Amino acid sequence: MTDNIGNNNDNLNLDALFIGDKAENADLFKTTLIKLVNEHMGWRKNYMPQDEPLISEDEKTSESFKSTVNKMNAVLDELSVRLRTNSVPWHSPRYFGHMNSETLMPSILAYTYAMLWNGNNVAYESSPGTSQMEEEVGKDFAKLFNFNHGWGHIVADGSLANMEGLWYARNVKSLPLAMKEVKPELVEGKSDWELLNMSVDDIMDILNSQDDKTIDAIKAKSARGGVDLSKLGKWLVPQTKHYSWMKAADVVGIGLDQVVPVPVDDNYRLDVNELEKTINKLVAEKTPILGVVAVAGSTEEGAVDPVDKVVELRKKLMKQGTYFYLHVDAAYGAYARSLFLDEDGNFIPYDKLQEVHQKYGDFQENKEYISKDVYNAFKAISEAETVTVDPHKMGYVPYAAGGIAIRNITMRNIISYFATYVFDKRSKAPSMLGAYILEGSKAGATAAAVWTAHRVLPLNVSGYGKLIGRSIEAANRYYDFLNDLSFDINGQKIEVNPLTKPDFNMVDWTFNVKGNKDFAKMNSLNLAFYQEASFVKGPIYNNDFITSHTDFAKDGYGDSPEAYVKSLGFTHDDWENEKAVGILRACVLTPLLYDKDNFAEYAGKIKSAMAEKLSKILNQMK
Amino acid sequence: MTDNIGNNNDNLNLDALFIGDKAENADLFKTTLIKLVNEHMGWRKNYMPQDEPLISEDEKTSESFKSTVNKMNAVLDELSVRLRTNSVPWHSPRYFGHMNSETLMPSILAYTYAMLWNGNNVAYESSPGTSQMEEEVGKDFAKLFNFNHGWGHIVADGSLANMEGLWYARNVKSLPLAMKEVKPELVEGKSDWELLNMSVDDIMDILNSQDDKTIDAIKAKSARGGVDLSKLGKWLVPQTKHYSWMKAADVVGIGLDQVVPVPVDDNYRLDVNELEKTINKLVAEKTPILGVVAVAGSTEEGAVDPVDKVVELRKKLMKQGTYFYLHVDAAYGAYARSLFLDEDGNFIPYDKLQEVHQKYGDFQENKEYISKDVYNAFKAISEAETVTVDPHKMGYVPYAAGGIAIRNITMRNIISYFATYVFDKRSKAPSMLGAYILEGSKAGATAAAVWTAHRVLPLNVSGYGKLIGRSIEAANRYYDFLNDLSFDINGQKIEVNPLTKPDFNMVDWTFNVKGNKDFAKMNSLNLAFYQEASFVKGPIYNNDFITSHTDFAKDGYGDSPEAYVKSLGFTHDDWENEKAVGILRACVLTPLLYDKDNFAEYAGKIKSAMAEKLSKILNQMK
Repeated sequence: MTDNIGNNNDNLNLDALFIGDKAENADLFKTTLIKLVNEHMGWRKNYMPQDEPLISEDEKTSESFKSTVNKMNAVLDELSVRLRTNSVPWHSPRYFGHMNSETLMPSILAYTYAMLWNGNNVAYESSPGTSQMEEEVGKDFAKLFNFNHGWGHIVADGSLANMEGLWYARNVKSLPLAMKEVKPELVEGKSDWELLNMSVDDIMDILNSQDDKTIDAIKAKSARGGVDLSKLGKWLVPQTKHYSWMKAADVVGIGLDQVVPVPVDDNYRLDVNELEKTINKLVAEKTPILGVVAVAGSTEEGAVDPVDKVVELRKKLMKQGTYFYLHVDAAYGAYARSLFLDEDGNFIPYDKLQEVHQKYGDFQENKEYISKDVYNAFKAISEAETVTVDPHKMGYVPYAAGGIAIRNITMRNIISYFATYVFDKRSKAPSMLGAYILEGSKAGATAAAVWTAHRVLPLNVSGYGKLIGRSIEAANRYYDFLNDLSFDINGQKIEVNPLTKPDFNMVDWTFNVKGNKDFAKMNSLNLAFYQEASFVKGPIYNNDFITSHTDFAKDGYGDSPEAYVKSLGFTHDDWENEKAVGILRACVLTPLLYDKDNFAEYAGKIKSAMAEKLSKILNQMK
Repeated sequence: MTDNIGNNNDNLNLDALFIGDKAENADLFKTTLIKLVNEHMGWRKNYMPQDEPLISEDEKTSESFKSTVNKMNAVLDELSVRLRTNSVPWHSPRYFGHMNSETLMPSILAYTYAMLWNGNNVAYESSPGTSQMEEEVGKDFAKLFNFNHGWGHIVADGSLANMEGLWYARNVKSLPLAMKEVKPELVEGKSDWELLNMSVDDIMDILNSQDDKTIDAIKAKSARGGVDLSKLGKWLVPQTKHYSWMKAADVVGIGLDQVVPVPVDDNYRLDVNELEKTINKLVAEKTPILGVVAVAGSTEEGAVDPVDKVVELRKKLMKQGTYFYLHVDAAYGAYARSLFLDEDGNFIPYDKLQEVHQKYGDFQENKEYISKDVYNAFKAISEAETVTVDPHKMGYVPYAAGGIAIRNITMRNIISYFATYVFDKRSKAPSMLGAYILEGSKAGATAAAVWTAHRVLPLNVSGYGKLIGRSIEAANRYYDFLNDLSFDINGQKIEVNPLTKPDFNMVDWTFNVKGNKDFAKMNSLNLAFYQEASFVKGPIYNNDFITSHTDFAKDGYGDSPEAYVKSLGFTHDDWENEKAVGILRACVLTPLLYDKDNFAEYAGKIKSAMAEKLSKILNQMK
């Protein structure tokens, strides 16, 4: 029965899987919710049915009982007031802001249902049902990246998954030094430089060939002991480095001093030429490269780094004796790999892609939404050692549900705190998962929510591909809309300048008064627009268009924004003086604006809302 | 209005706050749930009421829509089958196993409600409502430990909170070395040894007296840079060290080699004499002490370490120039501090305690359930630098909800990744919480669930005190029950030997055949009993008594279990040969067995269930 669940999506209608912008599916949600709640209540009641209830009907009508219920309700009323007052209306197609959106109704239902059991996936024993589900979800992750001998698990969030990736990198890269100390014949004839440049697979092959006692002895002399951390070398991240990478380097003891930023290009993607230069310079100084991070879907631009070129570079460098660990931070973009996998999990050839997408209805229009660059980048993720994947982002699963996939399953032994054989025989999952991952206790309900989402929408073109397709198509519609957009506000012309054609589903843009040559003034205009289009200026529930804002500052982005700034008519000196360009940023997650007619309807509304805000701002700026 | 919510608990009836062992409050739960869901749906619908729904009634009756709903329901049915088959019936008073129990109905409802908005507390902007709640919960944590200038926040789980504590310790203790490098006059005349033994408050006072630029320069030269990690010294943990401490030392780069186990006494509490000896030995070798961990509520015995004596020792050692960071791992026990706080948050004098508990009805019987040792230990937590507190354990909040409290609020700046002034002015909370904590994205729903629990049950004798009281009283009843218990199984006498009088709510015991002098055989008997009383032997739903099992092994516990083993009639040699004693372990969390009559009713059932299992085992052992 389970087997059928994962497939057979010919007739999928995604609109049935969300509550809806106007709560169109509220009745469906409530009916299913109550059905599930009843099933839980029946389960409670029928465990040892001979036992009498301990809470009597008499007690339930007592004064203290009633007053306690009143109190609970008063607190819940206050909760309701506060949430309805201070929440973001991301369910509406008028929301073009942060990474918030509708989540999958089946996931919300599954979470709620599983929460009634309150399983803790730290150990198999206390949560057999949801522990099995997490194991299955981990296999889904591995399959998503074509990791044929990999595994994966749920993590509280992407920052922690990144940290776990760095922890893996640190410990695995330190093993050869430990081998040299514990059993030198394993790495005989290798210099320290060579030891620090061994490939992960070679390291693991040697380790796995040893008996348990030797493995434990080598592990004890690895970086987990607190040794050799400073010998492992540099951790290279894209220049636009997300603060989570700084934090990860701090926490795992590698240190901020070892983090080396690599410039991004005009499309805000990691510049592989610069990466090669950086590596060559370090290698010339005999500084090892601990690892490189490539990002698949940056949080500010949705940029997809050329993972394929990083992998190519690694192959090239291996020949000259340099090896770096590769972690792909696909917290944001990972689920988009579903767009490239057929129902058997094979990566679809690029020249077949549009045809397949048409067959499955992943996009409404037959356009080349996916560039070859992005395609190649996603394809090459299969070569990374570890990948961050966040179900709570493009998986449309409620927070908090992050994840990680590990290409070589045997790597989990090098960070584990129990002997390898501590596995539950029925599920082949670790019986004490907490000893194999960064975290400890974790909600079984999260595993249930992700598992349910993956069973309703398999991670390929027939399932998640359709949902991600909707998001990308809506983003492209929004990009085209902005490209054609301009305003005439009481005689003042406002131009609209999108940043780049989106790699994915993030659309950035700026407004400028036509002819304005004052860069600072343009920045003020966009900041003011953001304030009008966010919680900053009064109750957000009354706001009819909402977006977000970010600064591309020289300190962080280097000069990569300069090309865009110049394209708007500003000069090198303007850029040098301001040192930042303020950007409006839309993360287009809504599952409803992929549709041409729906989009057209909202385009008019959004244009009016923007015009009204601009008018107000220009009046105030006078 | 909110102000009233937190107090006025004269007439509190805890039975109204749980779904109940027989789903007695199922109707209340469902009615409230649907009311809340309707409130969310109304909110969705009424945001910009002029917008037409994008999912039409026609579409909802289409074939594809219906088949997608069918698919969703099929997956949810499968989920239901798997959860009902493979879950643990902790809702029943027949469950005396792991840390699983009923959770507070208001928390489940709050989580479900808030999840519909899917806020992410990583940043204030995307979750204003729940971010404010997390700030308030953080203040609750600080108040729980009488941290008058502290703060706190929610963490995914206790392992991560412990890791965050160690991260804090590492970075703060490294600051004096950084000061010496950046601005030597700040620490003029101090030797490196003195720098490594400065108190946390002294360090923070100096740092806080500097301007932002200097602070940033000092931070950059602290351990976050990856330097000085090996100079900071040893991290001392109780001998029974939970693997989360090994993992934490590994991850934060301090290293397992720096973890020093300190023996526990016969009551499985940290032995402060041994601690002093260990420290003196290290100091004599000029090895600094990075920090000491005391545990308030060990996971295996519920033992509460003498935090007061550790604090006293620290005061004594300070006079001779030694200072260690103190982290209290109260993941399990923290909420029990509510039993000692009056409604104004003041710590109640010991000689008034029973009187106050009687006044508030925290215990049904007027007995000395709380020993002076345990009282003193809880009192002294106010002197720790950081404390782990898990709402998902004794807070009766659903997983995953951990937490941490920090005594000196200014410490958060030393681990932060943004300038200190990045605070939201309305809430005084960090506008980007993710830059001030170990994690990144986190469910706003968790904050709502904990906030709601704290508003219904304030963290003092009038609220949580009553709930924790129920648990402790039930544990004591169970302990007394075991003390009086013995079996006659077809002529064979079985004796029951509780381990220690519980510090808290964990009761450990063993069975032995009367007169049996074969230690290995006793271990086999208890292991077999566990297998009969757990998922190991077939479907758990059909099992009428469930408990858990743990091994007290020499490798880990040293010889602390020897006294217990000898008390059962075995010898020193028996202990040396077996090197472990298998223990049955009940974490008594049920909120219903505090009652004398209820307990008596279940005592009979449990005794029969135990007898049946023992009989089966003895038959098989023949």
